[in-house]
Formats: sequence, C-alpha cells, structure tokens
Amino acid sequence: MRVGVLGTGEVGRPLASRFIADGHDVRLGSRSADNPTGAAWASDQGERADHGTFADAADGVDLLVNATPGTVSLEVLATIPDADLDGAVLLDVANPLDFTDGFPPTLSLANTTSLGEEIQRAHPTARVVKALNTVHNSVMVEPDRVPGHHHLFVCGNDDAAKALVREILAVWGWRPEDRIIDLGDITNARATEMLLALWVRLYGTLGSPDFNLAVLR
Amino acid sequence: MRVGVLGTGEVGRPLASRFIADGHDVRLGSRSADNPTGAAWASDQGERADHGTFADAADGVDLLVNATPGTVSLEVLATIPDADLDGAVLLDVANPLDFTDGFPPTLSLANTTSLGEEIQRAHPTARVVKALNTVHNSVMVEPDRVPGHHHLFVCGNDDAAKALVREILAVWGWRPEDRIIDLGDITNARATEMLLALWVRLYGTLGSPDFNLAVLR
Repeated sequence: MRVGVLGTGEVGRPLASRFIADGHDVRLGSRSADNPTGAAWASDQGERADHGTFADAADGVDLLVNATPGTVSLEVLATIPDADLDGAVLLDVANPLDFTDGFPPTLSLANTTSLGEEIQRAHPTARVVKALNTVHNSVMVEPDRVPGHHHLFVCGNDDAAKALVREILAVWGWRPEDRIIDLGDITNARATEMLLALWVRLYGTLGSPDFNLAVLR
Repeated sequence: MRVGVLGTGEVGRPLASRFIADGHDVRLGSRSADNPTGAAWASDQGERADHGTFADAADGVDLLVNATPGTVSLEVLATIPDADLDGAVLLDVANPLDFTDGFPPTLSLANTTSLGEEIQRAHPTARVVKALNTVHNSVMVEPDRVPGHHHLFVCGNDDAAKALVREILAVWGWRPEDRIIDLGDITNARATEMLLALWVRLYGTLGSPDFNLAVLR
C-alpha cells in the first residue's frame, strides 16, 4: 500500500514508522520539501520511506493520514489539489487542541461541530474516517501497552473506507471484533474529539499517557 | 442526614428514593410547593420523605443535590436564599444538554466553561462537587448493573465536601479505593460534561443505558 502521512510531529512520525514496519511505502509530508525532520525520518527509515510537501505526500496514495495539529489541519488540507483528495481514504487522527490560553487546552472546534466534520465538509468527495484520536501516539500503534480490554472509536460516512482503516488497526492489535466501536457517521467525531477534555485531565491525574478507556456494559 | 434534592424528574426521584432507602430524611424540591410529582413521591416514600419548593428543599440540609435539567440549573439555584447555599455541600449531577436542535443534543455550556464551574462561580461559598453525571440514573445508584471494574469521576474545590460525597457513593457501591477517580478542582467538570457527547452516541450504538467507562492503565 502507498501511504501518505501529513505531519512530521510526535504523532506523524510514529504512525509513519509503523506503516514502514508493516511493509508499506510511506511519504511523510510537511510544509516544505526540505523539512529537516522529514528528511531525517526518511533517511532513517530506508528505501520505502520518502518525504516531501503535504501535496507530495497526498499524491496517488491508497491512504492519507492527517496527523497535523488539529488547529491547522484545514489549512494544510487546503494546500492539497482536489484531485488527490477525491475518493481518497483520509484517516483523521488529529484533535483541534488550542493551547492559546495555556493548559489545559480548549478545542478550537467543538460541541456543534468538530475537526472531522469540518474536514469532510471542506472536502466532500474525500472519504474521511476519524479514529485513533482518543489515545496517545504510543498506544495508537501498540494498544497492548495498556493491559486489558479497551476500546477505540471509529466513525465516518463511508463503510469501505472504515473497513480499510479497521484492517490496518487490526494489524496493530486493535481487533475489529472486540476492540473497535463504530459510532456511525462523521458527526460522531464531535464525541471523540470532546473526549480530549477528559483525556488531558486523566493524563495529568495518572501521570502517564499509557491509558485508554473501555466501555463496559 | 438531611438531604435536599432539586428536581423531580428521572434523575431526581431515583436519587431521592435511594437516600430514603439509606435512612436519610429527604425533601424533593420543585418549582411549586404543590407539584403533583413531588407530592406523589413523598406520599409513596413515607415519613422521612417530604416535598416543597427548591428553596424548601435547600433549607437546613446537610447535602443538596442538583438534579435539575442542566440548562435551567443556574436559574433554579438563583431561587434559593444565599444563606442556604453558604457552606452547603452541593452535589451537581446535571448536564447542560440542549435539545433545541433535536438529537443528538449539544451542550449549552462547554469547552471554555461548564455547568459545574458556572454554579461554583454564581455561588462562591457553596462547596460544589461534580459527580455521577457520566452515568445513567439507573447506574448512579446501582453501579453493579454494569459488570466489571468501571469508574466514576469526581471533582470540586473542597476536599471535605468531596469526602462526604465519596462516603455516600461508597454506600451505593462506588468504592472510593478503586472506582472513584478524583480529577481535581471544579474546572474538571468541563471534562466530564463534555463526555456526554460520547455518552449519548454510545447509548444509541449500544441500545441500553446500562454501560459505563473504565480507565485502563
């Protein structure tokens, strides 16, 4: 599979490296083609790793991952030609965390909308899937860092796109039969992004990002 | 203990009945002293049960519970004399769910504030404790309806008030040593109220309100 990952930060690099480890070809995208972090990552990860602009990363991929800071994601996606987003499976793992007023952050989009919804609205022919945004980057690619039976929430309008994402997540240990909860369409992104208010407080209370929620019934 | 419960609805009555079952004296408060739901509840619950206005319910109690709809809670509390709220332990179980635009609801206060915080701000000498707002009323008073090891979040500025609430919750099965997570001060009400966005979606997905979240680490 060819995978593009938007964002060279603490979320983008671990995800991109995991895709490389899984045997995919990965291009990491950033604002400039000569971004030193992107270049270092590609050099470190070998032949199947590449880097470039956001538009380079989105060009002709089977899966595009938005791992940019949520407050700039819409702006980043606007730099990508419509043709590359048309029909693309766009896995959005970002949260619109706004640290303008310090800690704890607020959300720049919330309650009556969400980043996932706004991305889908801005790019109506992309197939946006929201997932992974409720766990730390370390847990995203290695759920067994947290012992026990815990859950990941997935939502999006396109069933085939969600199925592709579930296949990828299954490889990482998020078993589709008992660890994934499909909340429905992309408006449910609101629910999982608003969970971040609790997530950041729990991080402070527990003192480690290696935690996750389980839904018990 | 003398307990006042504000609100005669689906949350207030079960809580009030549970306090009666626990051996406390309970007054259920509503807008009018002759509210038929309040009168029927008091008649049904026997000698230790009474009903009256919101102000009647708050008069001289050891614990006051806000179980009114979150969108009207501030207005309700404004009808209670300051003297009755001064120093009072005020357990706020409400959520500011706004159904104006149908389902799913949004929150009338969110992200940069919360109902718990606004109650504390409006009544600075009350000792507000936010708890129980993340589970259905059936689970509030009987956590074992949901099997397994799941959690309740508590927050507030006053440690003695939180300790009293924890004692009550322990009687209901919310063991303080392993089922209660104290998030800290009342600003954390933001986090637990925003969880309702996920709660209402999960209710729809799971088809039953008998569920709760567990924090795994």
